[in-house]
Amino acid sequence: MDKVNIAEKLSLFNDYCNPRIIGELNGQQVKAVKLNGEFIWHKHDNEDELFLVIKGTLFMELRDKMITIKEGEFLIVPRGTEHKPVAKEEVHILLFEPATTLNTGEVQNELTKNVLEKL
Amino acid sequence: MDKVNIAEKLSLFNDYCNPRIIGELNGQQVKAVKLNGEFIWHKHDNEDELFLVIKGTLFMELRDKMITIKEGEFLIVPRGTEHKPVAKEEVHILLFEPATTLNTGEVQNELTKNVLEKL
Repeated sequence: MDKVNIAEKLSLFNDYCNPRIIGELNGQQVKAVKLNGEFIWHKHDNEDELFLVIKGTLFMELRDKMITIKEGEFLIVPRGTEHKPVAKEEVHILLFEPATTLNTGEVQNELTKNVLEKL
Repeated sequence: MDKVNIAEKLSLFNDYCNPRIIGELNGQQVKAVKLNGEFIWHKHDNEDELFLVIKGTLFMELRDKMITIKEGEFLIVPRGTEHKPVAKEEVHILLFEPATTLNTGEVQNELTKNVLEKL
């Protein structure tokens, strides 16, 4: 058991849309990810997903509105809700979600990460 | 569905050792709590517990060591592990843990909060 420094974990990689696992508890995972640009529309049928912004600004597009999430803020996207994360500039995010959560939800494409690195 | 500003939630109360629920997902809860002073030794038999420091420094006493957790760092205390949170000055913490988690674990005393306020 040791503490985790979030910024330190984020300094270990520079690629986008590639979440790393930095903590695991109760069947859930804490992931660190960097985004830059538009991700894809997707949803998670069985998982609620928490996005906590560590640095920068995340724009979460929903079918009926757009939510701006700044540093120190989080958004919980309920299961079944279509969403598209958008970063106009680099943004650093902590995800808190079940271990079963796939980054692209029901979509399988070149962005899909079936296996995540643990840092 | 709306975003949550962590500092704003923390500004809504000033008492210590009284976690508020500020998010719920997948049977887990996100709680905000302020500590100042020594909490009690306790453990959670069925829940792993994540402490993320938002402001200040948290000292987590374990039976065999003490872990210092600063702003931007988190510690996961596995189920069954005795721990005592200590704050030498006011510290602001985010907890991620199952909704079943009781703040004093297996101990029931005047610090036990059986019902938490939702903010």
